[in-house]
Amino acid sequence: MDLKSLIRDIPDFPKPGIVFRDITTLLRDAKGLRYTIDLLKQRCVDANLTVDYVVGMESRGFIFGTPLAYELGAGFIPVRKPGKLPSAVHSIEYQLEYGTDCLEIHQDAIQPDCKVLIVDDLIATGGTAAATAKLLQLCGCNLVGFGFIIELRDLNGRASLPNVPIISLVEY
Amino acid sequence: MDLKSLIRDIPDFPKPGIVFRDITTLLRDAKGLRYTIDLLKQRCVDANLTVDYVVGMESRGFIFGTPLAYELGAGFIPVRKPGKLPSAVHSIEYQLEYGTDCLEIHQDAIQPDCKVLIVDDLIATGGTAAATAKLLQLCGCNLVGFGFIIELRDLNGRASLPNVPIISLVEY
Repeated sequence: MDLKSLIRDIPDFPKPGIVFRDITTLLRDAKGLRYTIDLLKQRCVDANLTVDYVVGMESRGFIFGTPLAYELGAGFIPVRKPGKLPSAVHSIEYQLEYGTDCLEIHQDAIQPDCKVLIVDDLIATGGTAAATAKLLQLCGCNLVGFGFIIELRDLNGRASLPNVPIISLVEY
Repeated sequence: MDLKSLIRDIPDFPKPGIVFRDITTLLRDAKGLRYTIDLLKQRCVDANLTVDYVVGMESRGFIFGTPLAYELGAGFIPVRKPGKLPSAVHSIEYQLEYGTDCLEIHQDAIQPDCKVLIVDDLIATGGTAAATAKLLQLCGCNLVGFGFIIELRDLNGRASLPNVPIISLVEY
């Protein structure tokens, strides 16, 4: 199946000059959704990844992370924007193009030494994924890999990530 | 499986006097996550629901809506906060306890006459779910039911929803 044909290009969103890769057209296609999750799972199997937990970042990481966790027989851990998680959290600030952003994870979300896969819809510069990896370090768990639906190769986000397998299904 | 035992009570969140029902402890439990999705699917089957699309609201609705769509062989449609969806949207404002909130759906997300199930983690007063049902009316599609993990019965959110089957797995 040609996943790229199900992803819609939206020019000038969220600002002029940016081509937004819209995955809502993939999600609404039942066969496309199923194929995407099955392929992501297969790629994890091919990479010999053992996964106790899938971590997904708010909010498009939730969309792909939860069904993958379900299919892998893993638990799912949400990484969220500040103030959303109700119990004690680890927080990390990270740089955006302009200004900073912050992500949080429950301190007791993951037992130390568990094997964790980080999932998001897209990797661009890698800032969000790298910040999430640092949150997992604070939890003392083992990052075993990253899974993305879309990778924007020109931005070389891989260079900012730890040295673990990085899976992406579609490249631009 | 006792789902309620996997949901954590957090007193005084997000404000004093509120007991927050924290589903992150359910999500991180691999068997609990699997059981939750399987039970939600079974309840849809028991209610004879035919579902072309699952609609989930940002952002905890994404967590349960996508694996359910995957399992039902349906597509998934995200309903989002303003400014997040990149193409033309229908918008709806709705009342909160203080002030208003707004939700959006892509205008071309759903073909008219399709059968749609709305999924969220929790129903309280029903404001978000009722607003989402109105968005689906704007799309001209057929709402066939609602699915929630948690229902806060005292707040009687059901009374604000259209007359279709309402599934909830855990009641408080």
